[in-house]
Amino acid sequence: MRRDISLRSLSGVPEVRPGDDLAALIVAAMEGAPPDSGSVIAIAHTVVSKEEGAIVELANIRPSERAVALAAEADRDPRVVEVVLAESLEILRAERGVLISRTRKGLVCANAGVDASNAAAPDTVLLLPRDPDGSARRIRARIAQLLGAGAGPVPPAVMITDTFGRPWRQGQTDVAIGLAGLQPLDDWRGRTDAAGASLSATVLAVADAAAGAADLARAKDSGEPVVVIEGLSHFVTDDDGPGAAALVRPLDEDLFRS
Amino acid sequence: MRRDISLRSLSGVPEVRPGDDLAALIVAAMEGAPPDSGSVIAIAHTVVSKEEGAIVELANIRPSERAVALAAEADRDPRVVEVVLAESLEILRAERGVLISRTRKGLVCANAGVDASNAAAPDTVLLLPRDPDGSARRIRARIAQLLGAGAGPVPPAVMITDTFGRPWRQGQTDVAIGLAGLQPLDDWRGRTDAAGASLSATVLAVADAAAGAADLARAKDSGEPVVVIEGLSHFVTDDDGPGAAALVRPLDEDLFRS
Repeated sequence: MRRDISLRSLSGVPEVRPGDDLAALIVAAMEGAPPDSGSVIAIAHTVVSKEEGAIVELANIRPSERAVALAAEADRDPRVVEVVLAESLEILRAERGVLISRTRKGLVCANAGVDASNAAAPDTVLLLPRDPDGSARRIRARIAQLLGAGAGPVPPAVMITDTFGRPWRQGQTDVAIGLAGLQPLDDWRGRTDAAGASLSATVLAVADAAAGAADLARAKDSGEPVVVIEGLSHFVTDDDGPGAAALVRPLDEDLFRS
Repeated sequence: MRRDISLRSLSGVPEVRPGDDLAALIVAAMEGAPPDSGSVIAIAHTVVSKEEGAIVELANIRPSERAVALAAEADRDPRVVEVVLAESLEILRAERGVLISRTRKGLVCANAGVDASNAAAPDTVLLLPRDPDGSARRIRARIAQLLGAGAGPVPPAVMITDTFGRPWRQGQTDVAIGLAGLQPLDDWRGRTDAAGASLSATVLAVADAAAGAADLARAKDSGEPVVVIEGLSHFVTDDDGPGAAALVRPLDEDLFRS
């Protein structure tokens, strides 16, 4: 089977501010070329966080002793470190100026996803959306509403992404932190390969692969947070499905707890 | 900037056997539609391993005491475990029937990449190519030679992929284990974002994102090991570049050594 996949970045999404209607900005940016039925709309979390006002003013933060100590080791702003600690269930590693944390949603990433570089104003930091799967469902429903009949029989799936490092590999890739309507995993266990042999444990992280692909379609400096992916409709479902929560490995299956 | 990316899986690559000319099989499968200049040809390592004869007959393996003990814990064939140990620099974890190893090339993955499910014959296992970057360079040169003028000013890059798990996320994604002509990393450190703010440490793992995307373009049961990616020509170089070795995090930067 030949599966053609294509990705295009939307150039017309403006700077997003708290209270904006992000879905409407995205639909407007499609400029009368609505996505095919069963498309996937990949959105960098930064614009969702801004829309939702997930912004912290550092002037309001009083760092704890632990934050001050960690910040001193890492030559960082103790107020930012305090925000990272507040967003974390646990800190897995604190070395070389990097805090690897497990967020309240179970995501393992640097600095609990707290982002100073993409914040809208100086002396503020952006947090991850409070409930990224909920955000994805909300945005998906709103896009379907705005597109109306133009959404096709299966409204576009929505994927919210962030950029994560990987422990043993250089560089970062985007992963899915919020999902509505895209199957997160494709489970091939028990199925057979082309030769009829049973496949060894193979569960494809469809959504993470799609998130990484979406990031390739934009340049980091372009201010283009939204990418439309066509050709994954076999993974797009009418219902919103389990969300990106299904991509988080349960704690009791984590082989790398310290 | 809008960067359209597209991926298509080649349907005409036959079963590969040791000594075959894989590059010629790939060029034949393009069926007179040669890739654009600056394309990327993503190849599942299994067919490269088969071409190179990286196949072990289990009948010839005498398992060590350590392999017998690990195999008993995991309810696995001790001969396969012996092959995994022979391919590994170290075993990072041996739990739940999974051996997480660091291969001689520094790749951290399950079972040192030793693959029983895709082997051509019963009682054999496939190894990773001995030198995946070298394999990629060899295949790239041969494809360029076969395409001749049809290769365009910059011959297609070649990427060899394998499917890896991730410690804190469910499911697997494909990563690049061999590269020729594709920039492995895109380093944005020190550059500024659209608002002129400096970006926090951001090094994009371009090749791994492309590898994951390629895997989305084929079904696991389709016997389609080759995917052509168009639209990444800004990452494709005339020279073969540093290869996928540049994607392996040096041991002294590994925060998760036990």
